[in-house]
Amino acid sequence: MSKKFIHKSIIVNPIGMIYTSHTTIENMPIQPVGAAGVEGVIELNTDLTEGLAGLDGFSNLILIYHLHKVNGFKLTVKPFMDDKMHGVFATRSPKRPNAIGISIVKLVRIVDNKVYFEGADMLNETPLIDVKPFFRQTDNRTDAVSGWLDEKDELKAHSHRSDDRFK
Amino acid sequence: MSKKFIHKSIIVNPIGMIYTSHTTIENMPIQPVGAAGVEGVIELNTDLTEGLAGLDGFSNLILIYHLHKVNGFKLTVKPFMDDKMHGVFATRSPKRPNAIGISIVKLVRIVDNKVYFEGADMLNETPLIDVKPFFRQTDNRTDAVSGWLDEKDELKAHSHRSDDRFK
Repeated sequence: MSKKFIHKSIIVNPIGMIYTSHTTIENMPIQPVGAAGVEGVIELNTDLTEGLAGLDGFSNLILIYHLHKVNGFKLTVKPFMDDKMHGVFATRSPKRPNAIGISIVKLVRIVDNKVYFEGADMLNETPLIDVKPFFRQTDNRTDAVSGWLDEKDELKAHSHRSDDRFK
Repeated sequence: MSKKFIHKSIIVNPIGMIYTSHTTIENMPIQPVGAAGVEGVIELNTDLTEGLAGLDGFSNLILIYHLHKVNGFKLTVKPFMDDKMHGVFATRSPKRPNAIGISIVKLVRIVDNKVYFEGADMLNETPLIDVKPFFRQTDNRTDAVSGWLDEKDELKAHSHRSDDRFK
């Protein structure tokens, strides 16, 4: 178990692009709950359109994407929703060793290779890596304990906006 | 919006390795709910250990990893939990354009750079891409509609095991 591995790099080819109204990393919604009603659209590469069959039966999608405007990372960060430092893996800070983001968004409609959604908390022209359906049956953890976030008086994600700390 | 982009490839360097008891792609649990009590351990690259500070306050983690044994992809697949074909993006099939998996697992304990967890539904020696805390406040979608999965009589993820269809 403690054998040393040289971890091989992984090449990821984006499957499409996410278009939103957010053009700067400041003043963005924090998490999709802070972006209720904010629309975005995925333009999937047209050769992959067949892979969307049946997705219109789902109300929520998990988007995995490249945080393409983030440079470098920090091992400890002060997240938008707290005023204390935490290890980056205990936060959703974009300034992480692999600049990969996830958002659980609300599906609005699918037209050909375009997927319209609500809850757009990512930058315009974000490279999309994957779309997965959210399974109500297996993806909820309603009794989860959420560390430092549980200690906040109120959830600020609904109203707080980003600033330039992770630029 | 309809401008043609040449999407640049993204280089992802694994941040560690996931060790589990699953050595073949057949007969594995399907989703962490099918792997309750099945332990796994992350060995994070030691230079990143500081990034785990505060993660021990969370009961559940989102792991993002490379489905490293999957070759190629199919645009339509028959998922383990159904007997009908669906577009790959409407399933959690590993045979997808980018072989990236996510699992919401239960944190057991953290010792130095090792993160012990339950709900191990991935292969042994899976390259880890990211660890994020699960936020009860923003990551649950208890009223989600789940397409073809809702139409199944019972959720098979608890008892079904994988076979070799995605080899």
